[in-house]
Amino acid sequence: MSQKDIYVKNMPLGEAKEKYHSALKKINFFDSAATTEIAVEEALGQITGAPVFAVHSSPAYNAAAMDGIAVHFADLASASDAAPVRLTEKQFVPVNTGNNLPLEFDAVVMIEDVHYVNEHEVELAIPATPWQHVRTIGEDIVATELILPVGHRIRPIDQGAMLATGVTRVLIKEAPQITIIPTGSELIQPGTTPAPGQIIEFNSIILAGYLNEWGAVAKGAAPVCDDKEKLRATISKAVKTNDIVIINAGASAGTRDYTSTVLAELGEVIVHGVAIKPGKPVILAIVENTPVIGLPGYPVSAILTMRLFIHEMIYSFMDMQKPVTAKTQARMSRPMHSSMGQDEYVRITLGQVGEELMATPAGKGAGAVMSLVRADGILTLAAGSEGVGAGEKVEIELLRPLTEVQSTLVAIGSHDNIIDVLANLLHKGSKAIRVSSAHVGSMGGIMAIKRGEAHFAGSHLLDEKTGEYNISFIKRFLTDIPLQLINLCYRRQGLIIAKGNPHKISGFQDVADKKLRFINRQNGAGTRLLTDKMLKDQNINPSDISGYDHEEYTHMSVAASIANGSMDCGMGILAAANALNLDFVPIAEERYDLIIPQKFLDDTKIQTLLNIICNSPEFKELVNNLGGYNLRDSGKIMYRQ
Amino acid sequence: MSQKDIYVKNMPLGEAKEKYHSALKKINFFDSAATTEIAVEEALGQITGAPVFAVHSSPAYNAAAMDGIAVHFADLASASDAAPVRLTEKQFVPVNTGNNLPLEFDAVVMIEDVHYVNEHEVELAIPATPWQHVRTIGEDIVATELILPVGHRIRPIDQGAMLATGVTRVLIKEAPQITIIPTGSELIQPGTTPAPGQIIEFNSIILAGYLNEWGAVAKGAAPVCDDKEKLRATISKAVKTNDIVIINAGASAGTRDYTSTVLAELGEVIVHGVAIKPGKPVILAIVENTPVIGLPGYPVSAILTMRLFIHEMIYSFMDMQKPVTAKTQARMSRPMHSSMGQDEYVRITLGQVGEELMATPAGKGAGAVMSLVRADGILTLAAGSEGVGAGEKVEIELLRPLTEVQSTLVAIGSHDNIIDVLANLLHKGSKAIRVSSAHVGSMGGIMAIKRGEAHFAGSHLLDEKTGEYNISFIKRFLTDIPLQLINLCYRRQGLIIAKGNPHKISGFQDVADKKLRFINRQNGAGTRLLTDKMLKDQNINPSDISGYDHEEYTHMSVAASIANGSMDCGMGILAAANALNLDFVPIAEERYDLIIPQKFLDDTKIQTLLNIICNSPEFKELVNNLGGYNLRDSGKIMYRQ
Repeated sequence: MSQKDIYVKNMPLGEAKEKYHSALKKINFFDSAATTEIAVEEALGQITGAPVFAVHSSPAYNAAAMDGIAVHFADLASASDAAPVRLTEKQFVPVNTGNNLPLEFDAVVMIEDVHYVNEHEVELAIPATPWQHVRTIGEDIVATELILPVGHRIRPIDQGAMLATGVTRVLIKEAPQITIIPTGSELIQPGTTPAPGQIIEFNSIILAGYLNEWGAVAKGAAPVCDDKEKLRATISKAVKTNDIVIINAGASAGTRDYTSTVLAELGEVIVHGVAIKPGKPVILAIVENTPVIGLPGYPVSAILTMRLFIHEMIYSFMDMQKPVTAKTQARMSRPMHSSMGQDEYVRITLGQVGEELMATPAGKGAGAVMSLVRADGILTLAAGSEGVGAGEKVEIELLRPLTEVQSTLVAIGSHDNIIDVLANLLHKGSKAIRVSSAHVGSMGGIMAIKRGEAHFAGSHLLDEKTGEYNISFIKRFLTDIPLQLINLCYRRQGLIIAKGNPHKISGFQDVADKKLRFINRQNGAGTRLLTDKMLKDQNINPSDISGYDHEEYTHMSVAASIANGSMDCGMGILAAANALNLDFVPIAEERYDLIIPQKFLDDTKIQTLLNIICNSPEFKELVNNLGGYNLRDSGKIMYRQ
Repeated sequence: MSQKDIYVKNMPLGEAKEKYHSALKKINFFDSAATTEIAVEEALGQITGAPVFAVHSSPAYNAAAMDGIAVHFADLASASDAAPVRLTEKQFVPVNTGNNLPLEFDAVVMIEDVHYVNEHEVELAIPATPWQHVRTIGEDIVATELILPVGHRIRPIDQGAMLATGVTRVLIKEAPQITIIPTGSELIQPGTTPAPGQIIEFNSIILAGYLNEWGAVAKGAAPVCDDKEKLRATISKAVKTNDIVIINAGASAGTRDYTSTVLAELGEVIVHGVAIKPGKPVILAIVENTPVIGLPGYPVSAILTMRLFIHEMIYSFMDMQKPVTAKTQARMSRPMHSSMGQDEYVRITLGQVGEELMATPAGKGAGAVMSLVRADGILTLAAGSEGVGAGEKVEIELLRPLTEVQSTLVAIGSHDNIIDVLANLLHKGSKAIRVSSAHVGSMGGIMAIKRGEAHFAGSHLLDEKTGEYNISFIKRFLTDIPLQLINLCYRRQGLIIAKGNPHKISGFQDVADKKLRFINRQNGAGTRLLTDKMLKDQNINPSDISGYDHEEYTHMSVAASIANGSMDCGMGILAAANALNLDFVPIAEERYDLIIPQKFLDDTKIQTLLNIICNSPEFKELVNNLGGYNLRDSGKIMYRQ
């Protein structure tokens, strides 16, 4: 095995887009959409392929606009309360709204103003104006006038306007056909449990979903394993029946990545490697007059590069302008350095904390699908920019409606499964309060409150000296911030261990003596403080604990490592052990509180949260089902400043 | 025939909504959505019926985050440029991005930093940190953690997150089934040419379209003719298989309107008549525990009342919050009086003219489908408010994206078919400039320019004294406004007459002598000035022209009345006669100019317009095909001030 030739350029984004756009223009890609005629009833959401003109006028005749009688306005010229005019048969005719106005009449008197003398005669006390209460022919639209221009997305009202004016069939543009070809021998189908090294193939579902939302007809093909000839055959076939072909993965410089070689052999690689992060190894190629795009394998990279390169292509293909993505101004809660020489796309969590919309960077891993599920927006740090400072105003491209962001409670701090329980109860029904929670440990939560990033922080920081929870930390780090410390629960902490306790662990001494693989929590986590206190109390040197340096950020990820067999034990809560069917050696009961700044206590979202904690029987039942919790002080104010 | 009992109340909107909401709560309507389990791949756009939790962690194993080699970080502790560390077989293993990290290793060194000494040995010059370039198990999400709350609309990224964590089936809420029953013997199917008194049934398509966009599964039923028993049978059947039933038309107090009677017999009418305009006769009823809503027959009334009463019902049924409609601030270009005692919903055309977004009321007729096609937004004039003054800031509910509004050229003034030609050429392709045109005659256009409502106005006002077009009117009415008057075309004006000229018309004298039915244009229209000048020149008294008082607003509506046989002749342009296959008696050639305020001349939209007029061969060809035009001065500046 030898180091392979790494040939991925770092072309500026603008240049890459321009180069590919010119290449696509040369093959007439933007003029290649076919048109087809369909029934107007079926045309909702389709794009007009030609202007649409009215076939007949609307109304097509002079129509009564009210229920009443049709009259000749001149007959009523002298009508008054004192001297009402009497009309006899042939001088009027009863009409309902929408009825054709007979040619001899030129006005309608509404029923409320008509006095029937007998069945054949009426008396009227008010004069009429010509054409009153009449919808005259062509009042709305006249035959041959323009209803819809070309390149217009057909709305329900447009369907109505076409049908109303005699248009029953409409020429529409055919959406671009796109095939997504997943590549990689490690891919397995959804529904299978992945063995180590295997990856569930879900990228094609995500990519197709977005492409279809953008108006394409996209579908995933069967995955192709790492075989150059198979890839070549699949691409050759796909370009014959598709408007765009997407190869997912195989775009980086790994040893198995044949995509760029195959594309260069089959056609022309216009761009390989763009100065963007994530998404650098993207390939923009053309094979047999069909655009073929190699997207990176990581889902987040694939989605972001697809947004950059393919979103606009689809709209241009359909002869439409790409809709402008909603943006908002927000204030950065912490500084971000720019990536040297690359445009960087940063996932952002937004929180309306008071008057300010605060932006906090979220999840960096390109493989982290959940980071995009959780993200509210994207911040672009331009190549060559100096980054942004804490407190600086930035523009964020929104991934969900601003109103949804504004109805979100931002929880940053220690994680507890009860936060998920609360998230569900808050989202249910008309309340529709979303909880965005970041698990950064208790100390991280206190810092988030200090920076104004969060509405509340979960915390269980034990002060070794006083034996008290949270208060001394608040006094030290949140000195000038008025707030309340409200208890959420007491919970059992202990060692999470494999089912059946194969290593016969009864406490930390066993972990040291038996040289077991321990997994620790990060600095600043309440559980870390508890661990350190236990080790100190028992005179165990941390360096005797194997894995003391391997830090995880949540109880659940500690439990997952143990369930998976890669670690033997770690400190965590009973709920986490229960959730993954693991065993548990109790060490202590600890207090878990919520830190809530005073200024948010009147916020209806926080009020709703506290109301659930204090009063909801459903909440109590769900928590008790988790196990290991005690709600004796739940909702109680433990401290205020 | 006797005047029927008119029993439609005028209940305030808030009260009506509250009353109906309580009634719906009593029948548990909002808890009646069924749930069903479907494959995650099919779940795009569906609403979660229960919270979704991760089945396994992601990553499910410790995975290499880079291409390179897996190592034990401790082995590299002393590595430096001066003293690189050599690793032999078993101390490392090559890994590609995504590969499982064997349990004995705890770090990855990226390929760029690896120096292969031979196939089995590598040299490394940099120490490693624990777990560098490794995606540790559960880093993204851990088994049992919450992925999606209940009542969440599933996005492509959510599908990916579910599949990535072993969730392959998801519980979703079943969308409400809605049937729309059109009523009325006058209804005919689309595709038939309506005889006088007949109406094409297109409301059910429009209503179903919006309901489906809001997440329901709605379809139109076959129309029911005006027969009480048939209506009763249809409703009785529909409530058994639908979550909501809509009766369209039959809600007002016309002689054929049985809906409320039938509903009162079958169930309970909760509300009949709400203080809104349009939409007053709406019926809110419950039959056999199913909501049945009678919407007014006019399409605009039906759509607006559906937005008021049914939009939110669908979201509540799905346990979701109704998305907030986009709104914008705009400045009224003219005063609007409020409707006494009724909330009034006014269709609005918006125009970004300079810095200001100007709002102009558009189309009042409740039957005018095109008015809603053209409208950009809705202004609500609350019952009891004093209306709004010209120049006042108002809030407009948007019917199309603000960016689309901002890329719209607002044309108000005299209508000419060339404006439609320009609209199409401007909308095509990447330009995507929309033209919103209101046909109010030349003088109306001048007033719109004065009020700042329009980017340009088409005008052909003949000054009797000077024989010159437009300039004297501009000097008089637009005194202080810097502008350019740019010629669009010369065009033939004349009498539009029926095919074959059955009345042997050679000019106005025939119209007077033969007492033919003439249709006039409105005051302020250029064609009206021309008509008046011709009558004066020929010494014909307007009162001798039958129909001189019947005014229409466009050439095409004049032509339509003649094509329809309700009128014998009217003044208009050759293009209008040609479009409807009518004959034409030429009277004069007139000049048609565009008035463009100086401040808009640098606007790219206006620049694009002028570029098409001056340089586009396609434009010239399309205009020449219309007939009756001469483009000899097209694009020439006729006057500036």
